[in-house]
Amino acid sequence: MPELDKQPLGGEPAARVLVAGASGFTGALAAQIVWSHPRLELAAVTSRSDAGTRLDRLYPRYRVPLELTELDPEGVEGIDAAIVAYPHGASAPTVAALRGQGIAVVDLSADFRLRDLATYERWYGEHGAPQLLDEAVYGLTETHREELRGAKLVATPGCYPTASVLALAPLAEKGLLADVAVAAMQGTSGYGRSSDDTVHFTAMTENAFPYKTEGHRHRPETEQELAALGSPAPVSFVPHLLPLDQGELATCFARVSEPISRDEVQALYRERYADEAFVRVLDGPPNLRAVRDTNECHVYVTVDEHDHVLACSAIDNLWKGASGQGVQNLNLMLGLEEMEGLS
Amino acid sequence: MPELDKQPLGGEPAARVLVAGASGFTGALAAQIVWSHPRLELAAVTSRSDAGTRLDRLYPRYRVPLELTELDPEGVEGIDAAIVAYPHGASAPTVAALRGQGIAVVDLSADFRLRDLATYERWYGEHGAPQLLDEAVYGLTETHREELRGAKLVATPGCYPTASVLALAPLAEKGLLADVAVAAMQGTSGYGRSSDDTVHFTAMTENAFPYKTEGHRHRPETEQELAALGSPAPVSFVPHLLPLDQGELATCFARVSEPISRDEVQALYRERYADEAFVRVLDGPPNLRAVRDTNECHVYVTVDEHDHVLACSAIDNLWKGASGQGVQNLNLMLGLEEMEGLS
Amino acid sequence: MPELDKQPLGGEPAARVLVAGASGFTGALAAQIVWSHPRLELAAVTSRSDAGTRLDRLYPRYRVPLELTELDPEGVEGIDAAIVAYPHGASAPTVAALRGQGIAVVDLSADFRLRDLATYERWYGEHGAPQLLDEAVYGLTETHREELRGAKLVATPGCYPTASVLALAPLAEKGLLADVAVAAMQGTSGYGRSSDDTVHFTAMTENAFPYKTEGHRHRPETEQELAALGSPAPVSFVPHLLPLDQGELATCFARVSEPISRDEVQALYRERYADEAFVRVLDGPPNLRAVRDTNECHVYVTVDEHDHVLACSAIDNLWKGASGQGVQNLNLMLGLEEMEGLS
Amino acid sequence: MPELDKQPLGGEPAARVLVAGASGFTGALAAQIVWSHPRLELAAVTSRSDAGTRLDRLYPRYRVPLELTELDPEGVEGIDAAIVAYPHGASAPTVAALRGQGIAVVDLSADFRLRDLATYERWYGEHGAPQLLDEAVYGLTETHREELRGAKLVATPGCYPTASVLALAPLAEKGLLADVAVAAMQGTSGYGRSSDDTVHFTAMTENAFPYKTEGHRHRPETEQELAALGSPAPVSFVPHLLPLDQGELATCFARVSEPISRDEVQALYRERYADEAFVRVLDGPPNLRAVRDTNECHVYVTVDEHDHVLACSAIDNLWKGASGQGVQNLNLMLGLEEMEGLS
Repeated sequence: MPELDKQPLGGEPAARVLVAGASGFTGALAAQIVWSHPRLELAAVTSRSDAGTRLDRLYPRYRVPLELTELDPEGVEGIDAAIVAYPHGASAPTVAALRGQGIAVVDLSADFRLRDLATYERWYGEHGAPQLLDEAVYGLTETHREELRGAKLVATPGCYPTASVLALAPLAEKGLLADVAVAAMQGTSGYGRSSDDTVHFTAMTENAFPYKTEGHRHRPETEQELAALGSPAPVSFVPHLLPLDQGELATCFARVSEPISRDEVQALYRERYADEAFVRVLDGPPNLRAVRDTNECHVYVTVDEHDHVLACSAIDNLWKGASGQGVQNLNLMLGLEEMEGLS
Repeated sequence: MPELDKQPLGGEPAARVLVAGASGFTGALAAQIVWSHPRLELAAVTSRSDAGTRLDRLYPRYRVPLELTELDPEGVEGIDAAIVAYPHGASAPTVAALRGQGIAVVDLSADFRLRDLATYERWYGEHGAPQLLDEAVYGLTETHREELRGAKLVATPGCYPTASVLALAPLAEKGLLADVAVAAMQGTSGYGRSSDDTVHFTAMTENAFPYKTEGHRHRPETEQELAALGSPAPVSFVPHLLPLDQGELATCFARVSEPISRDEVQALYRERYADEAFVRVLDGPPNLRAVRDTNECHVYVTVDEHDHVLACSAIDNLWKGASGQGVQNLNLMLGLEEMEGLS
Repeated sequence: MPELDKQPLGGEPAARVLVAGASGFTGALAAQIVWSHPRLELAAVTSRSDAGTRLDRLYPRYRVPLELTELDPEGVEGIDAAIVAYPHGASAPTVAALRGQGIAVVDLSADFRLRDLATYERWYGEHGAPQLLDEAVYGLTETHREELRGAKLVATPGCYPTASVLALAPLAEKGLLADVAVAAMQGTSGYGRSSDDTVHFTAMTENAFPYKTEGHRHRPETEQELAALGSPAPVSFVPHLLPLDQGELATCFARVSEPISRDEVQALYRERYADEAFVRVLDGPPNLRAVRDTNECHVYVTVDEHDHVLACSAIDNLWKGASGQGVQNLNLMLGLEEMEGLS
Repeated sequence: MPELDKQPLGGEPAARVLVAGASGFTGALAAQIVWSHPRLELAAVTSRSDAGTRLDRLYPRYRVPLELTELDPEGVEGIDAAIVAYPHGASAPTVAALRGQGIAVVDLSADFRLRDLATYERWYGEHGAPQLLDEAVYGLTETHREELRGAKLVATPGCYPTASVLALAPLAEKGLLADVAVAAMQGTSGYGRSSDDTVHFTAMTENAFPYKTEGHRHRPETEQELAALGSPAPVSFVPHLLPLDQGELATCFARVSEPISRDEVQALYRERYADEAFVRVLDGPPNLRAVRDTNECHVYVTVDEHDHVLACSAIDNLWKGASGQGVQNLNLMLGLEEMEGLS
């Protein structure tokens, strides 16, 4: 089989892109999406732990034949944009160094998601670059699109807030949410690459469980965004780990401040998302297989016998929940078509 | 390997037991539990669809070498008790025929679970033996134990109500539940043996989804039982199908009528279940692997930042959610030790 | 989300293509590949069992918004080529009717794979169109490429022969195979859509087993092709079903007629497949995740301490093992680039 | 739920048993089997890495409430027998120390399986206690039963040799094996607890692959045992990892030195295993679900069209492939019934 020695770009790239932290699950997928993107050039992939290894050896299912190198954040050259896929806390200083050189940054970590520094520090510890919080745009594309055009620093939302807020946004924007409970479920790719007993195949197969019942840091992030949309509602949140790889469900129970019928709420959702390229409003409950390896979010909304709204969404946690949405935002930052390289 | 030609009973059996509908998932497990029960004799296993087949050919993982026969409900002889594992609706007439011959019956179907005939008929259609509703005892052992001793007709609860009510009973008994939302999740054995596209391995692997969002018949059953315990609260309920075989989680969000602290609610649960042989109150969230192939229910309760109670439970839907609980009740009906044959 | 109302074709299509039997696993994928193919127009999708249903309702993970219709094989109009995904035996008469109207046909069934009518009839029963056997070309692209260019009727190989022959072809072509044993393994998509107890998720999860140990019809097909390449060797063959969806492994133990060293056999394979777009010779054993949803075949060959050659291959049974290879051949039949629409 | 504070022993135990290395998969199961064994007292469970943790916290699905301690192999007191579940190489010195105190030892590692020191050292490195090799009995119960009665040091066979030799023993004992190829498949519990990228759920789900194609150390062990039975045949061996937890298949292709018919070979197997408590000869291919969590080996044998014998076996790699067989042997060493505590 003849080796592909260069990226299959059509013409002059719109930007030369670095992916930092490309040996983790979200970084590797970001690299793959950029590699097959018709307008972006994948200029470099970096990783502390796996420098010297070709990315397609580490992730054979992807097809990126580049060797991972170590990143010197102060000495980057010839790069227009970077996607940073570092752990929370480790990301901020690198992002600051890259921004210092004028590089546009999509950060996949949580470091720039929370607008309130105190809240950040309560859940994540000391912040490594608080001076950049004002510049950062929250990258849930469907609710922050205009701010994202031309932005220089974008915080890609957490996967759970992505699924939850998209499930609830039409109601939140109308100020209708009074109280929300979210049961969310995610596959093991959301746990990250760092192996431990929890995600050993032997431990996960035929298993499933709730976790972080005492408080998950995606809860305040979800509340921040629902409030920003118009509904400062309390959110109860319980995530679960499921025996599958990629995929995430959010099942949301919402008490509403004014009664709304099933027909009304379904019409509201169809109208709200009619022009969204990646949000599909379904006629029945969503499932994970239909969104796997896509940047789509599938949503279904109904009203139960007790007049509570049930809103269910499904995404691929690595795509719309991380790297796919990151590139969706990068497209907007660079003035490209939002869907480019994502379908 | 020498074939086991007779049931490994220690002495004179306390009862000769028939399992009707033994070719389905719950019937087959009921047969296996009775077969290995030290005090019960498995007298016959019946099945319309698979008559003539040995049960251990149909379910090699079980070890019941009896041949399935067709049941003549009017002409049963030498049987003290029956476990009926028929579909909803089909069960009632057979149960009536068996009761007519004085046989004690554990019904695994929904036919005698709902105390209100109108509610039954709304969710399940016409009732085949409404005259027996008064006699029937609802078989959630932990909340109906005294009625179960010596009962002649027991309706084994649905799997979701079992998990949900056990997760909420200590609060319900104190009258504390104001409003409940339950996200429940179940493996494919809960879907039953009848194959269709939904549970083809190709469709379920790497998949998960909510279903019956417009109303599931286990909701009114759960409300009936919470009300009976002291909390007539509305329940919003969304079940999900997971890519695993046996196991069921109920994640319950409860608004309470009076504030309760985390310490208080955890103490309440520990005390309530201290003497229950099959309910284990955990220090953290339960998981399915720990209850698989057991009759146990694992429960964890906590309070979140918005003062909502989160109660999580895990059961094996075929054991505590059906056949195991059926035998637990049969033990009580026959005056045997509740745990016999179940650990 | 705006609905895609037409196929995303760049310009004038090279051919208008019908997919018959598009409600099965291989037919549905064939439809999807043609739908997203830049040079082929998906003119119609047909199905007896699901006529009236839109294909993307049946297979949401694919994105083909066409409605399934019933095929009238005698009255097809405006079609240049057809992919027929019917069961063995049912295919031949339909293929004959389509050929009678001058339509080029890729048959995914076994009906035209075996060159010898008696062998066909022994394994599959009476043949529905034996007069077409001479015209049919065996569609293992890598070993029949020249015959495939411009062919009018192509029999897509069985998935097991595809994996086995690609694993052994370099040796077979040198006449080196003396005796071959193949242990092959496949996911449940290879079992087909027709649900039964065997592929119920409950039955397959945590399970795996050999089957058809008394004789599988892919064995004579594999022997036919190895003989055609130069090695008329006996093949012992045992297939296994695995708890996964798409993917197939062939692990081949070959006794060779002349000693060959590890270096020699590895060089032989690298050279043989150097120019093949879809065959990748690896430095170590292949795995299924690297080929999933691709038309690639990954091959590894080595020699063990007893001088037996071990050749291992991995394919996606629905892609290179069926529909992907079908389109690869259709490209050659129509004079298009072999890789078009497949990467 | 009332905690079980003591082991459910009926009377005076036949032996007080130590399980060393009880935090690994095989050690933990050995502890569980001894804990529920009616005649053995589980006196202590030890582990270097998890000392201080209760075993039922580490493995909730087991029910052993003992705390893991660190083993001082020189200072063990009040112990009659030990099951050692250490890694290869680490085991021998500990076994020697325990034997030095007169303790009967079942070793689950490879350290005493190979009779030939040079072969051991080639595959495993230097041997830590070669002086004990003569004393050690190879613990494939069905082929070494008489030596095992009263033995003081038993080497539990590797899981692959257990499955392979049981699949081939009837032929080997008749001297009929000329050449053998074994394709074996195993779930991720066989990979051991030590987590790494390979057995991350994300890596294994929807995956399967051959490994160690250049030579696996279970091959010489299998050859040693087939030779000891009467057939010094070369064995080609390829193991595969499957996406499941517990279970192992061996599919064996055997060329035989004299022709044997299907009826003859099936009669030979039935007769050979007629009195074996844990070997079941089936009428068709075995599957993993039927042996999961049991100490059974299911075997099927047939002859194909090329007069090669196909012999297929299935075991649970943790039970008959390790800990279950270990206790089966311990029973014989202590003069107990072979089946006790294992069904």
